[in-house]
Amino acid sequence: MLRGFTVPKSPFGQAALTPPPPWHYAGDVVGVEFWTDPDATAATLPNSLSPDPNSNGRAVMMFLDWQFTAQDDEYLEPARYQYREASVLVDAMYRDMPVMWCPYIYVDNDSALGCGWTQGFPKKMGSIFQTRSFAAPGPAAVPVASGSRFGASLSAHGQRLAEACVTLHEPVENGLSFVSRPTVSLRYFPRLAAGYQDKPAVNELVMSIKEKLTVVGAWTGNGELNIPEASGEELHALAPSRIVSGFRFSVSYSVSDLEILEDHGL
Amino acid sequence: MLRGFTVPKSPFGQAALTPPPPWHYAGDVVGVEFWTDPDATAATLPNSLSPDPNSNGRAVMMFLDWQFTAQDDEYLEPARYQYREASVLVDAMYRDMPVMWCPYIYVDNDSALGCGWTQGFPKKMGSIFQTRSFAAPGPAAVPVASGSRFGASLSAHGQRLAEACVTLHEPVENGLSFVSRPTVSLRYFPRLAAGYQDKPAVNELVMSIKEKLTVVGAWTGNGELNIPEASGEELHALAPSRIVSGFRFSVSYSVSDLEILEDHGL
Amino acid sequence: MLRGFTVPKSPFGQAALTPPPPWHYAGDVVGVEFWTDPDATAATLPNSLSPDPNSNGRAVMMFLDWQFTAQDDEYLEPARYQYREASVLVDAMYRDMPVMWCPYIYVDNDSALGCGWTQGFPKKMGSIFQTRSFAAPGPAAVPVASGSRFGASLSAHGQRLAEACVTLHEPVENGLSFVSRPTVSLRYFPRLAAGYQDKPAVNELVMSIKEKLTVVGAWTGNGELNIPEASGEELHALAPSRIVSGFRFSVSYSVSDLEILEDHGL
Amino acid sequence: MLRGFTVPKSPFGQAALTPPPPWHYAGDVVGVEFWTDPDATAATLPNSLSPDPNSNGRAVMMFLDWQFTAQDDEYLEPARYQYREASVLVDAMYRDMPVMWCPYIYVDNDSALGCGWTQGFPKKMGSIFQTRSFAAPGPAAVPVASGSRFGASLSAHGQRLAEACVTLHEPVENGLSFVSRPTVSLRYFPRLAAGYQDKPAVNELVMSIKEKLTVVGAWTGNGELNIPEASGEELHALAPSRIVSGFRFSVSYSVSDLEILEDHGL
Repeated sequence: MLRGFTVPKSPFGQAALTPPPPWHYAGDVVGVEFWTDPDATAATLPNSLSPDPNSNGRAVMMFLDWQFTAQDDEYLEPARYQYREASVLVDAMYRDMPVMWCPYIYVDNDSALGCGWTQGFPKKMGSIFQTRSFAAPGPAAVPVASGSRFGASLSAHGQRLAEACVTLHEPVENGLSFVSRPTVSLRYFPRLAAGYQDKPAVNELVMSIKEKLTVVGAWTGNGELNIPEASGEELHALAPSRIVSGFRFSVSYSVSDLEILEDHGL
Repeated sequence: MLRGFTVPKSPFGQAALTPPPPWHYAGDVVGVEFWTDPDATAATLPNSLSPDPNSNGRAVMMFLDWQFTAQDDEYLEPARYQYREASVLVDAMYRDMPVMWCPYIYVDNDSALGCGWTQGFPKKMGSIFQTRSFAAPGPAAVPVASGSRFGASLSAHGQRLAEACVTLHEPVENGLSFVSRPTVSLRYFPRLAAGYQDKPAVNELVMSIKEKLTVVGAWTGNGELNIPEASGEELHALAPSRIVSGFRFSVSYSVSDLEILEDHGL
Repeated sequence: MLRGFTVPKSPFGQAALTPPPPWHYAGDVVGVEFWTDPDATAATLPNSLSPDPNSNGRAVMMFLDWQFTAQDDEYLEPARYQYREASVLVDAMYRDMPVMWCPYIYVDNDSALGCGWTQGFPKKMGSIFQTRSFAAPGPAAVPVASGSRFGASLSAHGQRLAEACVTLHEPVENGLSFVSRPTVSLRYFPRLAAGYQDKPAVNELVMSIKEKLTVVGAWTGNGELNIPEASGEELHALAPSRIVSGFRFSVSYSVSDLEILEDHGL
Repeated sequence: MLRGFTVPKSPFGQAALTPPPPWHYAGDVVGVEFWTDPDATAATLPNSLSPDPNSNGRAVMMFLDWQFTAQDDEYLEPARYQYREASVLVDAMYRDMPVMWCPYIYVDNDSALGCGWTQGFPKKMGSIFQTRSFAAPGPAAVPVASGSRFGASLSAHGQRLAEACVTLHEPVENGLSFVSRPTVSLRYFPRLAAGYQDKPAVNELVMSIKEKLTVVGAWTGNGELNIPEASGEELHALAPSRIVSGFRFSVSYSVSDLEILEDHGL
C-alpha cells in the first residue's frame, strides 16, 4: 500500500514532494498594483471567467518570501520548505463575483511547485528575491517605515522576467483590503495518450480557500515595475502601462480545502 | 482560447512548462545494476504490479545527461531544455510481463519535471552530475575505453542521495539489452477538496512508449553505488546489498504516446 | 585607466565583483556554541595563533541571513547582494589577546565571496538556510519567543555539511557578549608561477574591524548540531563533542578597514 | 602547519577550494568571432597592453563545458570539478606581441573561480549552457556535422548577459589556429586596510602557459551573438557590431606554471 499525498508515492509516505494538508504559510510580500493592456489581461482568462467591466486591465504583481509547514515541523527544514514566489493576478469576474485570476506564478522550490499544481496554481521554477527588513539598525537594515525602499526581481532559466521597486509612504489600516478578492485558478493535468493530448485529465476552475488569513504591517507607497520581453514566456504581454501604487505586508494563512467552481471536464 | 500542452495555459501557448509532443531525447547514461532487499523493492510496487519471482530485489540506478527537443528547435535553448536525471528502476511483473517499475526519479529542470509528471514519472528536483567523455585527449578527457572510470552523484535540497562509480571493462554488442524491459510508472494527480484528498483525480498505471529507441556505445564493467540515508526521502530503503555491474551507454528515443495499462480511478 | 575595487577591473568600475568599501551589513544569526576535540581546533590554527589555554576546543557555528549594501543602494538588488553564510569560529589566543579564529566559512553569492577573500575570510560557495521569523502569526511564523525553534543547514556541492536546531529559552540582555572576541583570519593569495607555488603572494594574519557593531533581539537556549563527514572538506574534524547552547540574534555593522596583525610574507 | 594551495588552508589540505597544480582540462567550446567598438575594447586594456593596430575591436566570445582534474582523480567528483565557463577575449598587443586580453569571464563553480583568480582570470559566477552533441542519433543529438546548430547562453544573478548560436559549415584543418595568440590577464588582489584600498597587494600582468594544448574536431561556420545591457556588468559595452564567424572545437591542456609579464606593484 503506497502512501503520500503527491508523487512519489512510497511505502512510508515520506518521499512525497508535498506533505498532506493542512498547509500553513507565513510570508512577506512586496508588490505593485498596475494597469496593463485590457486585451492582454482578457486574453489570459479561461472559460467561465470574463473581464471585470469596472477594472479590466488592472493587475497586481507580487514577490513573496514564504515559510511553509504542515503537521511535521517542516519549518525546521528550511532547505526544503522555505521558498520564494512571484505571481501576477489580474482582475476578472466569475459570474457576478469580482475575483483575481492567476495566469503566471513562479517558485524556487519543487515542494512548493507540487502544492501549487494541486491547488491549480500554474507554477514554474524561477529565482525570486526581495529586499528584506532586518531588526538590527543600519544602512542595510531597511526598516518598515516611511521612505524605506524594497527591490524585487524574478528570473527564470537565466532570463530576467520582472523587476520592481517599492517605496513605503504610509501604513494601511485594513491590510486585508490587499487580498479582498478571492483568487481563481485552473487545476489542469494533460493526457499524453495519442488522440487525447488535447483532452486534459483534469480541467477544473477552482477558488482558493484561505483559512485564518491574516495581514499585518501593511504599507502602501510608490511602485515601479518593469516586465521585459523573454523567450518561452508570455508574462511580458502584461507589462504595465500605468503604475497605481506599491505595497508591502506580512501575511499568513492555512489551506486544507479547495472550492471547485466548475469542472470543464474533457 | 488558452493554449499550451501543460500549465501555464496562455494566449499563444508559449508559456507552457512543456511544449506539446512528440518529444525527442538524446543522452548519456552511467548506471549500476544491483540487488537490494526484496521486501524493499516489493514495498514500492503499486496495485497491479507484483514482484518478479525470478529477480525480486534486482534494481538499476541510472544517471543521465539529457538533451531535449520538441518541434521548435528547443535544443538551441540549452538553459531551458538540457537537463540531468537520476532514477531507480526495480524489476516487477505486470500480469505475466516482466517490467521495470520506477519508484523514484529526480531531474534538475522544471520543463523535464512537467514532461515527467505527464508520463507518470514521479519526478522531484535534484542536482545530478556524471563524469563526461571529451574528445580532446588528456588526463581529464576520460575516453569511452577499457579502464576508464565515470563518477556520478545525485543530491536534493543539499543532501547527497546517491553516489556511483563505473569502471568500463568491455563493449556490449547488444546495447538494447540494457533497456529491454518496458518501464511502468504511475500517472497520479491528487485532489485537494476536503473529503477527497485520498481520492486522486488521476491514478493510472502506465507504460512508456519509446519510439526509435537507439543505444550506441554501450559498455559494461565494474560498478560501485552508495545510497546514504536522507530525511524526506525513501530512496535509501533500496540501498544495494550486492553490486552486479556498472555500465555506460548513449541513448535516444522519441515520445508521442503513452499506454494506459489500468485506470485505478478513485 | 581601469576601475573597480576587485576584479574584473573595468572602464567604469561597474563590473567588479564587489563595490568599494565601506560595506554595511544587517542580518539574522542562528548559532550553536559547542566543544570539540581540542587537538582538532589547535590543528586549524595558523602561525602566530595559539590555543586558548582556558577554552581550547570551544567553538561556535553560525548560520546567517545577510543583506549587504555599499554606497550605491546595493540592497535594492537582492538577487546580487543578499546572501547566506555559515561559518565556524574557534577560540584561540593572539599573543595575550583572546580571539576567535575562522577556519571555514561558506556563502551562496560570489559578491560575498569576493568581499570575504579581501577580508581574509576563506569563503567557499555553499547553500545555507535558516528558519525565519515572520510577522504574521500562525504555525509557520516562528516568533522570536520562548520555545520557538529554528532549524539551519549548510550544504556544498550537494553534500550536507552541517545541520543545527536551536530552541529559544530566554532573552540575553547584553547581546554583544556573543561577539565580544575579535575575529582573526588569514588573508592569503597563492602564486602559480613554477617554483613559487608554496610562496604565497599574500599571507597576512588579520583582525576584522567591525564599526557600529549592533546586536538586538538576542536569545539563548538549547542547541543541536550535527557535522557529518564529507569529501573535499575538513569541517567534520570539528564535530561537536558537547553542546553548550543555542542562540539567535540580529546583528549589523560596517566595514571600511582591516587590521594587519602580522605579515607572514613568503 | 596548515596545508592547501588556496584557502581555506587546513590540517590535511583537503578543504582548499582548489587542489595544487598541475591542473588538467578537457572541454568543448562553442564560440563566435566578432568586431565591436574599438574604443570599447581599448578601454578594457590594463597598463602595458595596447590596442592591436591591425585588429583593434576584434573579439571572441566563447562558451565552454569543462572537465577538470588534478592529481587525485578529481574528475570522478563531477559535482565539484565539472564546470561551465563563458569568456570574452579581445585582440591586443603586449609590446610587439599580438595577444588576447581577457576582460570578463564567468564560471558556475567555486573551485574553477579559485583556480581562475590564481591565474589572473577575473572570474565571476554565472550560469552557462551550450547545446551538446550526443552519440545516439535523433532530432536531439546534434552531430558535429555541416548544418548542425549549437546554441549557448550566459546569465548571472538572473540576468541574461549573452546569447549565441553557431551553425557549422566546414571542418578546420588546423584547429590550433583558434588559440594561436597567447592569453594575457591581470592577477589582482586588493588591500582592505584604510589608506591602502587603491594599492593592491597583487597587481601583475600575466600570460597563460598551456601545456599539451590540443584541439580536435574544429569546425567553423555562421555565428550569431547578442550581448544585451545588464546592470552590474560592463560586458555589453563589447556588443558585436559585425559577426565574423562561429566555431566549435574540443580542447585540452594542462597548467602548472604562469608567466609574470610585469609586476605593476603598488
